[in-house]
Amino acid sequence: MNLKLGVIGTGAIGREHIRRCSHVLQGAEVVAVSDINLDGARNAVESLALNAEAYANGMDVINAPDVEAILVTSWDPTHEAFTLAAVAAGKYLFCEKPLAMSAEGCRRIVEAEIAQGKRLVQVGFMRPYDSGYRALKKVIDEGAIGEVLMLHCAHRNQSVAENYTTEMAITNTLIHELDVLRWLTDDDYKTVQVVYPRTTSKAHAKLKDPQIVLFETHKGIRIDVEIFVNCAYGYDIQCEVVGEEGIARLPEPSSIQLRKDARLANTILTDWKDRFIEAYDVELQAFINDVKADRLTGPSAWDGFAASVAADACLKAQQSSAIEPVSMPLRPAFYYR
Amino acid sequence: MNLKLGVIGTGAIGREHIRRCSHVLQGAEVVAVSDINLDGARNAVESLALNAEAYANGMDVINAPDVEAILVTSWDPTHEAFTLAAVAAGKYLFCEKPLAMSAEGCRRIVEAEIAQGKRLVQVGFMRPYDSGYRALKKVIDEGAIGEVLMLHCAHRNQSVAENYTTEMAITNTLIHELDVLRWLTDDDYKTVQVVYPRTTSKAHAKLKDPQIVLFETHKGIRIDVEIFVNCAYGYDIQCEVVGEEGIARLPEPSSIQLRKDARLANTILTDWKDRFIEAYDVELQAFINDVKADRLTGPSAWDGFAASVAADACLKAQQSSAIEPVSMPLRPAFYYR
Amino acid sequence: MNLKLGVIGTGAIGREHIRRCSHVLQGAEVVAVSDINLDGARNAVESLALNAEAYANGMDVINAPDVEAILVTSWDPTHEAFTLAAVAAGKYLFCEKPLAMSAEGCRRIVEAEIAQGKRLVQVGFMRPYDSGYRALKKVIDEGAIGEVLMLHCAHRNQSVAENYTTEMAITNTLIHELDVLRWLTDDDYKTVQVVYPRTTSKAHAKLKDPQIVLFETHKGIRIDVEIFVNCAYGYDIQCEVVGEEGIARLPEPSSIQLRKDARLANTILTDWKDRFIEAYDVELQAFINDVKADRLTGPSAWDGFAASVAADACLKAQQSSAIEPVSMPLRPAFYYR
Amino acid sequence: MNLKLGVIGTGAIGREHIRRCSHVLQGAEVVAVSDINLDGARNAVESLALNAEAYANGMDVINAPDVEAILVTSWDPTHEAFTLAAVAAGKYLFCEKPLAMSAEGCRRIVEAEIAQGKRLVQVGFMRPYDSGYRALKKVIDEGAIGEVLMLHCAHRNQSVAENYTTEMAITNTLIHELDVLRWLTDDDYKTVQVVYPRTTSKAHAKLKDPQIVLFETHKGIRIDVEIFVNCAYGYDIQCEVVGEEGIARLPEPSSIQLRKDARLANTILTDWKDRFIEAYDVELQAFINDVKADRLTGPSAWDGFAASVAADACLKAQQSSAIEPVSMPLRPAFYYR
Repeated sequence: MNLKLGVIGTGAIGREHIRRCSHVLQGAEVVAVSDINLDGARNAVESLALNAEAYANGMDVINAPDVEAILVTSWDPTHEAFTLAAVAAGKYLFCEKPLAMSAEGCRRIVEAEIAQGKRLVQVGFMRPYDSGYRALKKVIDEGAIGEVLMLHCAHRNQSVAENYTTEMAITNTLIHELDVLRWLTDDDYKTVQVVYPRTTSKAHAKLKDPQIVLFETHKGIRIDVEIFVNCAYGYDIQCEVVGEEGIARLPEPSSIQLRKDARLANTILTDWKDRFIEAYDVELQAFINDVKADRLTGPSAWDGFAASVAADACLKAQQSSAIEPVSMPLRPAFYYR
Repeated sequence: MNLKLGVIGTGAIGREHIRRCSHVLQGAEVVAVSDINLDGARNAVESLALNAEAYANGMDVINAPDVEAILVTSWDPTHEAFTLAAVAAGKYLFCEKPLAMSAEGCRRIVEAEIAQGKRLVQVGFMRPYDSGYRALKKVIDEGAIGEVLMLHCAHRNQSVAENYTTEMAITNTLIHELDVLRWLTDDDYKTVQVVYPRTTSKAHAKLKDPQIVLFETHKGIRIDVEIFVNCAYGYDIQCEVVGEEGIARLPEPSSIQLRKDARLANTILTDWKDRFIEAYDVELQAFINDVKADRLTGPSAWDGFAASVAADACLKAQQSSAIEPVSMPLRPAFYYR
Repeated sequence: MNLKLGVIGTGAIGREHIRRCSHVLQGAEVVAVSDINLDGARNAVESLALNAEAYANGMDVINAPDVEAILVTSWDPTHEAFTLAAVAAGKYLFCEKPLAMSAEGCRRIVEAEIAQGKRLVQVGFMRPYDSGYRALKKVIDEGAIGEVLMLHCAHRNQSVAENYTTEMAITNTLIHELDVLRWLTDDDYKTVQVVYPRTTSKAHAKLKDPQIVLFETHKGIRIDVEIFVNCAYGYDIQCEVVGEEGIARLPEPSSIQLRKDARLANTILTDWKDRFIEAYDVELQAFINDVKADRLTGPSAWDGFAASVAADACLKAQQSSAIEPVSMPLRPAFYYR
Repeated sequence: MNLKLGVIGTGAIGREHIRRCSHVLQGAEVVAVSDINLDGARNAVESLALNAEAYANGMDVINAPDVEAILVTSWDPTHEAFTLAAVAAGKYLFCEKPLAMSAEGCRRIVEAEIAQGKRLVQVGFMRPYDSGYRALKKVIDEGAIGEVLMLHCAHRNQSVAENYTTEMAITNTLIHELDVLRWLTDDDYKTVQVVYPRTTSKAHAKLKDPQIVLFETHKGIRIDVEIFVNCAYGYDIQCEVVGEEGIARLPEPSSIQLRKDARLANTILTDWKDRFIEAYDVELQAFINDVKADRLTGPSAWDGFAASVAADACLKAQQSSAIEPVSMPLRPAFYYR
């Protein structure tokens, strides 16, 4: 009784998810794939030894009668249309971020989903499935540190390519914090401010790096996130939660402690893919299980919308250097988890 | 094309493995179960929602035509007979430790397997599947610390029941180190000595606790293992490998760092089941994958035999307080991995 | 050839410094003490077994012919006058913070000192004498982390008394960071902003706690300092310096690592006096040595003035919630160290 | 009222102690020095700017009327005679280790001291003055880990010179553990055994390195000490104390935590002199203070004797590979601290 999956988009992430669903996870099989380049889809079927139909059009995947749920890993600008189509078809769908190219697009999905009457969409934010963040949330939710007052966070990449721009620090990098910090605090952003430290000499002309983004939430929590994408030393995600009774910190990734060359050292990862690799497995397994249980519990279309609204405010704050409001409508009852 | 498994013994561990194979791992399904108490087997089928036959006799599981591989999780004294029967039937088998009740029994399995001509047996030592030990072995094998000279290890339990005896420190507790340290060092024990520190007041009359077991290997590596099964503070597995160029240490299990109550603290586990829970998954998934690939790579019957021979020498050393030889025959070429 | 010291003010800190100079440090002796309460001064002489004259008026200490250098540990509002008098008398003086009750008062001292032609005044900022901060500065100055871009700091107290106000978070608590961060970065503050997270329920009515103070320096370094004086868990000073090549962090105070009660824990101090106790010794020994070498190298009147100007801007920023300029005149050549 | 010190031997350690007493510590001054090379003594007086008499014979220092206490930092074989002379003269003496060249020599000092009726001799074991060991002893003595059952220790040097022999691992290296572990556990050694791991390729022909020394104490505590003097990675002193209620570990020396080059690292010292540099100050300051208070509390002649007896047993165990008794007479009441 495997869940029959269709995958739209057989690029790098698409193939990775196909491999995952076919050879790592439990309870699913890929029965249809599509790619705008049909040969790419066919090649995926063959090279991954799938028993699946290859299509040129993602809509055919959505409409294929044997497809029970859809993974969208296609070109970003196509996400919204495929998601709306799946919702219209009443099929479960997992959409890699971004859910849409604008907050407005996300809102259209939210409205379609509410109109349709049932949560069908999960957006691909994987950090809530990371064991470290889960442990951190558990500590918070159990009250071990009391009411949360502040978060000190950092998102650091060893380096980025020439085409990475100042805006991408929000849309490609901070976007993960925008989601996971909402989830961690069970709260929404109220205002945002961006400040620019002196720029590292390792950044190229189009990029201000590092940046610090400062949030105030509705509960009054203050969050600072350092984004530093040419930090040189590694890929490093930090999150420290300061509560009334104590402080909890996201664990460092587990590694061998080495005494060598006059140093007592642990390795820091350099490739972001290694940092959350298990979270991707957990995320998709949870989606498969939830679909089979007919009840989604992961990041919703609303969460995708919220991240998008927050990102827009961050982009405005990058320009204005002022404290910008994050204008979120109230969360509809439909989306309370 | 799921691998069709038969499970002999539906006690706690049996059910845990059935759950794992049915609901966590990939590529297998349980089609037959047995228990000396047939009702127990039937209950397992029902409560775990299996599509499986229930038998009273494990031999029926082995001989069932649809069963492709067998898991043995029955009463320890039955392990040898079931394993020999599976080997005779030419079926793959995963046997929970101990492989047999004596080194002699393990040797019979080794001989039957060699006679049969193909590795069919995997013994349930899960530590080589723990991510921490794997990372440690990787560091060693890559040469990061040079030639290994010494290992300092500890195996600590918070407490044990009244019926736990001095001998069980070897047969139930140290047995895991006996396997994993051979694997880690790619070496065999040459001698063993046991020394007894003053006994903790938390140990009861029949138990000398802690104990320190000292090994010399064929390569000349010295290993000390502290066994302390009423250590009071938690379940704690330590392994420090001293090499010519540096020292590598098994990671502490990942946990949230907490600043609270005038302490900067990480949680130490108290339940041994939490420590290696992921390793059990990895171990069985590897067995499933290896059976499907028709080539076992995990702990072999020889490894079970070697651990048993070493345990016998440890038991003798517990009595004699002398340096006892560990008399292992040379490893047959059949078992080189 | 001990340096002959006069101490003005024999309250708690005065007595502590007298004890230090008499029984811990090298090369000094206390020959005169004063207190507005003459009996207090006499009691100090007696109870600390000094061979010293007791005066009612601090000016008498300054003018006593045998007094070669003065420590001012009297009531804060008297600091400026005593310091000016010592400068006028051409005598070296160590003044506990604050140097004066206002930036204007500090500036008067600076001007008097410049007019007098020689550095005579050291202000009692002890953190640059802490071994941790010194190690941190060494790492920075050696270029190990490249150019400094950001500092993430925290100053946390377990709790404060009812009479502690929102303003005191700047004048009594942040004042130490105001000095040490200038020293660490070899830089001056350009702007400051204060944001208020939700207030801990452990704070009383007159206090907003925690606060976050955000600085930009002339070099463009961004500094955030969390001030949290009812953090409940301990006294904790954090300082993380983010550079182009890496990140350096102030060491935690050394303590025994304990495995106990299911925790792997280090003690966090609760009393601020324990945190910098060695720094006080080092600070005063350095003052004694520098006076004997006729060349002061510690925190100067200018540093006291700079901290006072920055504190004034912080107080304004507390009120305005706006980004406030820190208007420092250029450092005179006289004060380059 | 400075304590007037005479220093016998103006080699490297002698000069270091002279500098310490003259320029770092409180309450002492060096008034006499001697060296078998009189020019060396004179040079020390001059270069360290002492107001002291220079002698060619250490006995003249002991007998100089203005000398109140003596530091012996001369050639090892002369220690016993100078110590006996100081005891005969009724003067306090601090003798660098070894107190004598044999246990027999130490015993003669013990007997002379008892006959003389008062503790006059302190032997230069500095580890009990190290802040880390003091904190560790405090944790033990407060009962935080309950009764002590085991100690796991290591003494590692980055490398040693060609002339370092297998025996020197005991007499020059382990000698510090022999003292400090007695002090830490308030116990005496009963038996000792030495085992040899495979030898590092970095050791030269005359040296077996590493070695593991195993002790049983009178209380039944088991101690293992790894001695590894070509460990390559740094100077590293480890001490883990396992008690009935928990485990306490000697702190790592404080250092800056650095994130750099894909590593989260702390520096490990490489020069042993840096490791205990503060302990030397504390040790000598304590001696000065104790002499002034007319009551020695530091490592006694008995402690020097005990370490020497234990070292002799270790040397025998190195040869025999058997479990050797450590034959200590009972501690006389005279030496209870």
